[in-house]
Amino acid sequence: MRDTPGKTPIWKAIANALRSDLAEGRYTPGDKLPTEAALADRFGVNRHTVRHGVSVLVDEGLVRTRRGAGAFVAATPTDYPIGNRVRFHENLIAAGRRPEKRMLALDERAATVGEAQALQIKAGDPVCAYNGLSLADGQPIAVFESLFPLVHLAGITDALRDTSSVTKALGIVGVGDYNRASTRLTAVRATATQAIHLQVAEGDPLLRSSGVNIAGQGRPVEYGRTWFVGDRVTLTLET
Amino acid sequence: MRDTPGKTPIWKAIANALRSDLAEGRYTPGDKLPTEAALADRFGVNRHTVRHGVSVLVDEGLVRTRRGAGAFVAATPTDYPIGNRVRFHENLIAAGRRPEKRMLALDERAATVGEAQALQIKAGDPVCAYNGLSLADGQPIAVFESLFPLVHLAGITDALRDTSSVTKALGIVGVGDYNRASTRLTAVRATATQAIHLQVAEGDPLLRSSGVNIAGQGRPVEYGRTWFVGDRVTLTLET
Repeated sequence: MRDTPGKTPIWKAIANALRSDLAEGRYTPGDKLPTEAALADRFGVNRHTVRHGVSVLVDEGLVRTRRGAGAFVAATPTDYPIGNRVRFHENLIAAGRRPEKRMLALDERAATVGEAQALQIKAGDPVCAYNGLSLADGQPIAVFESLFPLVHLAGITDALRDTSSVTKALGIVGVGDYNRASTRLTAVRATATQAIHLQVAEGDPLLRSSGVNIAGQGRPVEYGRTWFVGDRVTLTLET
Repeated sequence: MRDTPGKTPIWKAIANALRSDLAEGRYTPGDKLPTEAALADRFGVNRHTVRHGVSVLVDEGLVRTRRGAGAFVAATPTDYPIGNRVRFHENLIAAGRRPEKRMLALDERAATVGEAQALQIKAGDPVCAYNGLSLADGQPIAVFESLFPLVHLAGITDALRDTSSVTKALGIVGVGDYNRASTRLTAVRATATQAIHLQVAEGDPLLRSSGVNIAGQGRPVEYGRTWFVGDRVTLTLET
């Protein structure tokens, strides 16, 4: 994405700033962007440089230009409410987008120290790790990893392979109801593997959400982490 | 930060992964990191490469090594609860850290289309823009920009210059109470200017939180955006 480390060309900086405006959720598809003259003024550059910056967003499908009429917002990031239970599919459908989930890997492995702590098991205890990709209208918007403690949830790996639905699989192994205990959010760099799945550049900013789901008796049943593409998703929190 | 775009050296990838573990909040200061042998195993590299990766975190002050005893967590990112009113100072004090706020700029300017929409004013209407830097124990953790509609809040610029407290300044111009309407979160790249203030590299991932504060009568009085350094802050949301 960058020509030289730590030196963003001005046209890329303009593209980043405009992309950021769109991610802010203040535009809706069809809205007109400020004129080239206004953007040139805002960034203190000539109109040629502005046009170069805008063309990046056109290539990304975020903006469309109409000769003589200017540039218009074509798509805006998906709003994604953070709630007590994160219902990915329902949220996307409500936003008029077509949700899709792809399983990338399903393994059993030993829990690391941090994972064991989150799931209240011992480091090295076996967990089922479900890795997947979430898409909206065919565009990758997040990768996720969900971990399940096999000590308490024997059989969940097979159940996930059969249903590919976490809720259904938990139901099959006897967890009828569960709740999100807390959600932690931070910004991280995309790893090489994440970048490939998400079709972004390595090092691009991802919003990482992590949380533990707790079953009725207060026992952790799932430790989930989701990495959202910053440009494509805005988490919203109504207070 | 990167040697070549899209190609992270393995020692940097190790540093990023460990930094990410710390940001996850699963360690507390004093905790021992996994041994070099365990990390070499986890990443499939030799111990020399692991040592190189760990040394990055030592340089950043996140980890301390003791000869013969291994590597220990020196500092962990600040947990920062998202609530109805974000009380930065109180949160940091509760976390045992010394908060500090520095004013970077205080201007009056015309609102952009997006800003005007957030504040329910007209594009081009004058706003007061307060830019600042937040630190914890002397380390920069966020930059912020707060915008106030001058149409409704005449005199706020002088009040902010005098008090440098938003709550006090709003009080002076007659806004006794206000609430956060909603919070929007996404991940973005640090701009060149943000990178300088935050002591990170340009393009590093920042967690951007934005929200509008509403006064009693339902009128927006502040449109605030905060850019947190992903490595240094984790936002937490209790549900």
